[in-house]
Amino acid sequence: MSSHLVVKVHPLSCYSFGKKEAKVDKDIFLSDRLDRMRANFMRDGLRTYVEGILLVYEYGHPHLLLLQKGNKIIRLPGGRLRPGENEIEGLKRKLTSKLSSSSSSVQPIWQIGECAGVWWRPNFETLMYPYCPPHINKPKECKKIFIVHLSENQCFEIPKNLKILAVPLFELFDNVEKYGPEISSIPQQLSRFSLDLE
Amino acid sequence: MSSHLVVKVHPLSCYSFGKKEAKVDKDIFLSDRLDRMRANFMRDGLRTYVEGILLVYEYGHPHLLLLQKGNKIIRLPGGRLRPGENEIEGLKRKLTSKLSSSSSSVQPIWQIGECAGVWWRPNFETLMYPYCPPHINKPKECKKIFIVHLSENQCFEIPKNLKILAVPLFELFDNVEKYGPEISSIPQQLSRFSLDLE
Repeated sequence: MSSHLVVKVHPLSCYSFGKKEAKVDKDIFLSDRLDRMRANFMRDGLRTYVEGILLVYEYGHPHLLLLQKGNKIIRLPGGRLRPGENEIEGLKRKLTSKLSSSSSSVQPIWQIGECAGVWWRPNFETLMYPYCPPHINKPKECKKIFIVHLSENQCFEIPKNLKILAVPLFELFDNVEKYGPEISSIPQQLSRFSLDLE
Repeated sequence: MSSHLVVKVHPLSCYSFGKKEAKVDKDIFLSDRLDRMRANFMRDGLRTYVEGILLVYEYGHPHLLLLQKGNKIIRLPGGRLRPGENEIEGLKRKLTSKLSSSSSSVQPIWQIGECAGVWWRPNFETLMYPYCPPHINKPKECKKIFIVHLSENQCFEIPKNLKILAVPLFELFDNVEKYGPEISSIPQQLSRFSLDLE
């Protein structure tokens, strides 16, 4: 096991979850989202998106923190980088925007770890792939997913139009129908790490 | 992309594939395999298994080398470690046994890279998981999958009861029915690497 990287994981009960102002929804329909993506691509080129894998544990098993909008869309916390923005700094900004008090003067210190996976969007469509498909010279989006090492306690504040979920890895695995290809394969991407349940 | 690890990948045409003596089949039926696993567990405890991800490319897209027995069972090259054997040395031994001339005095230099994934077998059953499921204190097998960096040319010799396949990543992705959960999620596990098609 010497080749394993260690991720320290703390109990869910170490964390508190409050509410904050709702985030304005940029798109109501998926088609709006794809239209906006197309317009942005014309202006800025390849869209780069970053997301974080935040882990806690309960009943001796690791759980992934996810954000849910309404009763359907489930996502990792993260978002789109500004043109030219550093991916680590951009992920910290997005984590604060999605998970922390915006008003507090003390901002959380996000510790961003290794890249766990990368997904490519070849066209202005919903499907992404864990490789750039053949014959695609100009992919439209690249999404990078990073491990986020949580400290042993933290107060999260979640926009009130979002719900936060802690989902066990065994529920995600092989569950493409509910979580989609990206989130349902996070257990495989985490498997090379030694998750140290403290 | 600076956080990416690079894997150099060479064209399939750089490699040659010959035949060698067949490997004796230890088990004819799956039930024999599980029985043998049970007997070995009683004697040696946790079974540790190692496998290699060997990549080539064709038509500008990465392909994974796989071994097929008969018309069904498709596996990564690898095998079981001897009790106490170092996992890197054990993987080199298994790669030579499955992919190289046994008679040649010059043995290939296998360059074993990063661990890409780990799978656990909680019971003497076929299913494995990319985590140790809750309430399992004594998993029966741990399988670790490593990147193998191929040199830019090599002569493979395959036991004549096995076939070697080069399968594109886009064919593996989301194809659990044909390749099983472990092999079909290799594209996700590789996604964090920058595959440099030379």
